[in-house]
Amino acid sequence: MRQVIITAALTGAVHVPSMSPYLPITPEAIAEEAKAAYEAGAAVVHVHARNPETGEPSSSNELMSDILERIRSKCDVIVCVTTGASQLMTTAERLLPVEVFKPELASCNAGTMNFVLSEIAEKIDDGFGWEKPYLIKTRDNVFKNTFDGLQHYIETMSEVGTKPEFEVYDVGMINNLAYFKQKGILKGPIYIQFVLGILGGMPATVENLVFLKQTADKLIGDYVWSVAGAGRAQFNMAMVAIALGGNVRVGLEDNLYIKRGVLAKSSAEQVAAVRTIAEISGHTIASVETARAMLAIKNK
Amino acid sequence: MRQVIITAALTGAVHVPSMSPYLPITPEAIAEEAKAAYEAGAAVVHVHARNPETGEPSSSNELMSDILERIRSKCDVIVCVTTGASQLMTTAERLLPVEVFKPELASCNAGTMNFVLSEIAEKIDDGFGWEKPYLIKTRDNVFKNTFDGLQHYIETMSEVGTKPEFEVYDVGMINNLAYFKQKGILKGPIYIQFVLGILGGMPATVENLVFLKQTADKLIGDYVWSVAGAGRAQFNMAMVAIALGGNVRVGLEDNLYIKRGVLAKSSAEQVAAVRTIAEISGHTIASVETARAMLAIKNK
Amino acid sequence: MRQVIITAALTGAVHVPSMSPYLPITPEAIAEEAKAAYEAGAAVVHVHARNPETGEPSSSNELMSDILERIRSKCDVIVCVTTGASQLMTTAERLLPVEVFKPELASCNAGTMNFVLSEIAEKIDDGFGWEKPYLIKTRDNVFKNTFDGLQHYIETMSEVGTKPEFEVYDVGMINNLAYFKQKGILKGPIYIQFVLGILGGMPATVENLVFLKQTADKLIGDYVWSVAGAGRAQFNMAMVAIALGGNVRVGLEDNLYIKRGVLAKSSAEQVAAVRTIAEISGHTIASVETARAMLAIKNK
Amino acid sequence: MRQVIITAALTGAVHVPSMSPYLPITPEAIAEEAKAAYEAGAAVVHVHARNPETGEPSSSNELMSDILERIRSKCDVIVCVTTGASQLMTTAERLLPVEVFKPELASCNAGTMNFVLSEIAEKIDDGFGWEKPYLIKTRDNVFKNTFDGLQHYIETMSEVGTKPEFEVYDVGMINNLAYFKQKGILKGPIYIQFVLGILGGMPATVENLVFLKQTADKLIGDYVWSVAGAGRAQFNMAMVAIALGGNVRVGLEDNLYIKRGVLAKSSAEQVAAVRTIAEISGHTIASVETARAMLAIKNK
Repeated sequence: MRQVIITAALTGAVHVPSMSPYLPITPEAIAEEAKAAYEAGAAVVHVHARNPETGEPSSSNELMSDILERIRSKCDVIVCVTTGASQLMTTAERLLPVEVFKPELASCNAGTMNFVLSEIAEKIDDGFGWEKPYLIKTRDNVFKNTFDGLQHYIETMSEVGTKPEFEVYDVGMINNLAYFKQKGILKGPIYIQFVLGILGGMPATVENLVFLKQTADKLIGDYVWSVAGAGRAQFNMAMVAIALGGNVRVGLEDNLYIKRGVLAKSSAEQVAAVRTIAEISGHTIASVETARAMLAIKNK
Repeated sequence: MRQVIITAALTGAVHVPSMSPYLPITPEAIAEEAKAAYEAGAAVVHVHARNPETGEPSSSNELMSDILERIRSKCDVIVCVTTGASQLMTTAERLLPVEVFKPELASCNAGTMNFVLSEIAEKIDDGFGWEKPYLIKTRDNVFKNTFDGLQHYIETMSEVGTKPEFEVYDVGMINNLAYFKQKGILKGPIYIQFVLGILGGMPATVENLVFLKQTADKLIGDYVWSVAGAGRAQFNMAMVAIALGGNVRVGLEDNLYIKRGVLAKSSAEQVAAVRTIAEISGHTIASVETARAMLAIKNK
Repeated sequence: MRQVIITAALTGAVHVPSMSPYLPITPEAIAEEAKAAYEAGAAVVHVHARNPETGEPSSSNELMSDILERIRSKCDVIVCVTTGASQLMTTAERLLPVEVFKPELASCNAGTMNFVLSEIAEKIDDGFGWEKPYLIKTRDNVFKNTFDGLQHYIETMSEVGTKPEFEVYDVGMINNLAYFKQKGILKGPIYIQFVLGILGGMPATVENLVFLKQTADKLIGDYVWSVAGAGRAQFNMAMVAIALGGNVRVGLEDNLYIKRGVLAKSSAEQVAAVRTIAEISGHTIASVETARAMLAIKNK
Repeated sequence: MRQVIITAALTGAVHVPSMSPYLPITPEAIAEEAKAAYEAGAAVVHVHARNPETGEPSSSNELMSDILERIRSKCDVIVCVTTGASQLMTTAERLLPVEVFKPELASCNAGTMNFVLSEIAEKIDDGFGWEKPYLIKTRDNVFKNTFDGLQHYIETMSEVGTKPEFEVYDVGMINNLAYFKQKGILKGPIYIQFVLGILGGMPATVENLVFLKQTADKLIGDYVWSVAGAGRAQFNMAMVAIALGGNVRVGLEDNLYIKRGVLAKSSAEQVAAVRTIAEISGHTIASVETARAMLAIKNK
């Protein structure tokens, strides 16, 4: 039976605290979420840091260090550290956690795009003051991941032994990876996270996911993939990924709900839901050890 | 929340009794399966008759009559009567149950094809004597559904008020339906059951299901669809259908297992499994009344 | 520069003489068409026989023998002999020319289907008396190519050294070929002719051709392909095939026109048109020798 | 017969003068190219300005004014003015020609991306000194077209009566347009130019073009489209567009060759080649007047 890796993206930088009281903010809350997700079946957790007082996405290495230590003390889950904490940080700032913490996995955004969150601004009361400006600013900002930047990320991760998880938001980004593979800069099996449903990238539809997979089959060949569907599409994307031979990311970074109108109380709730679907449909959940082998992780 | 019609195909003419002790054979067993499937969440049951002593697919109207009465006495489920009981019957024989019973739904196979079951023959001990020859004969037989035949089925069903459920096994068959629609012979919303995984037709893959749906969107427009995936692909096809806006057929006609190596004890087990998947992923199950409305059924 | 094999299907069994005075009927006319097509750039001609007096599709081996000798005396073109002369002939009758003439190539229809020509009947005056009944009969006939039949064709062609050209009209037929390949019955590189636009099979659209190619890439792998688009779609299918890495069949069997409202005076006119398109778009035309190598033909 | 609009992109900002002596640089040379393209069958010319001495892409409004006047004095071709002259210009600078000249058409790049030209740098001798740095810089620059920027372009073009031609390089950009349509900011029929083969966007493959078209059918509905294939893929993309119901852009901006190893002496040569392909395959070329109607152009 095929094994499915479940990743839980615990807090991210897309949602803002006014949207859900369950979005974890403090290092301890994030670490508790990691543990709960792990116990529910996640082999990987994807982490961002937030300012513990305001909930604002943060690039503080102290906070990230605190989060990582707390997670490590609670469970053996694979940690994927973000390098896309904020569109407003420099490439070097975003890469710092990789150099400092040498995590097993780190995200690596595979191209430049608009990453527009302003629609959310219309739906919230901004209890913290920073949220609406933060969201609206994305209408005139870009999520910058140039070829020079990408190459620097790939080479740095290779040096420190961190496996890159390439966030792919559109078809051309697969070709970007094929370019680096063909140049010999990117080696070995490639791990791709298709992130669908972000305004600026591809919508989260079945057709889009199938097309991305077909494209990667042709352009990359030797790769492992997962999908994260933003918002309501989360479980639809999960089901199709399971059927198509892929892996699944869920978590409050991508979707705050467990069903229409009902907030998820934790990422673990969503992990448990996907696990049930996967098992009913004839698959098993990859353990941490299996996931390490599937992803060819070195930094254990 | 979108509502999903679950159909249970209770016994069919593909599997043979040596393959599973749970395959229902007698009218009473079939009716009991219908009731259990209904209680588990199926709005429709698809029925074939079998010789109660040998288990052989049968075109007996007495048996079908017995089955239909027993089902009706137990529950209000929508019954879809087969018109494809056997490749060896004539078009007229296959259509007879529609004329006699005027069911709410009846299958209508949308084109001619090879329908090859011989691979099964290698896996069974033929406890009943007829099974291997029955299966092997399909290598040199054809499943004949000509344009004259199709037109006759469509017109007859229209006269008696039975809604046709068009079994589509390949892309060209959608075009066959578009032909009859364009000619004005086939009217109103069309109900299509994509049956995937039969040797001779399309394999049960995600790509194939998506392509069929895209094709029907273009060629038919106004239609409702469901999918039946033969064998192991059953739950994968179900998940993709749920994600794509379709409906789902399960049941022992299509797949004898509930998970790898474990025989399903009833079609109801599979119905319950799909119901769980649908509900977890944010959908609800269509009741019999809702399904009647969705399918524009008249003969209630 | 990639080389493109042009096949000219000279007369076929789809069109009837009342539709065009240019449809070649007699062995000499067919052989002259073969020569003209060859000189215009065709590496292969696909031949059927017709009754020289009535124009009716014929299974006469005397006629086929006459045609083949006349072609051979005029030019060195590769001849692909039909084995699908008529839906009304038996499998053995249809295979006879292969056994008798051991041609370099012979068609091999890759599955059973409806093959409906009745729409043509409405457009013609039946000058010969047999045409309308011949066309209308296809509404209730089937084009029978069972798995036993296919296997017999494949094995016979293998014995006599004839390369099969598999006519594929729908997606499931690719899977039929994959079945025979996996069983070890069908060996080596496979040659597929996608025939699109026949009522009963897939329509001749860009999307369908791309999907067939994607499917064959996955299910077959080692193959060479060409496309024949029936009717107006002929040149559209040719252009897409050239762009997609395939080969092209044209000819009066598939399309009687050179442009809307203007009958083609010969298959050679269409060959010349495709040759021009291919050369302008940066490709070259395969010579007979190159085509023999590309198709791995043995019986030279 | 369907009419095909041919656009000639005369010089662009991708290729550099060292690559071809035929790339037009001066206003007079560009205007002569416009006239030749028009006479060969182009209904639209897409223009950029270049420094007449160095050949460097220029945002000078004097140069653009000179080019436009010279074109107007020579022929009635529709002019599409670029707003993407350089990745290094600001949004306001890029939009200026629209405000000043109120052209019939202007390009409007539909999203942010990497637009990487550095591969070209390896193939040239930089005769002008600026070429290699210009090309290499694209590895760390982004082609910025934010949502605020897009909205400003759309609104400004609407005010001055210029029809936007949306350059779409990847799937998500179609969704960007759908967003502005749904918001009511973008009205009426939309004109899309799919630009394929730029490193950073989608490669120029048949599958990609078909998928973009399918996506726009679903997300936009009421639109007219054309395709520009960079480099060798130019004619393949043109053929598929003609077959798929689209229009075609050629020209030295996209491809410097007329066949492998042979430089095109003008964009007009490529226009004539596409015209021949379109006419042979049963289509006609749209006149300037027809193109104005097809594109719903106002500023005539």
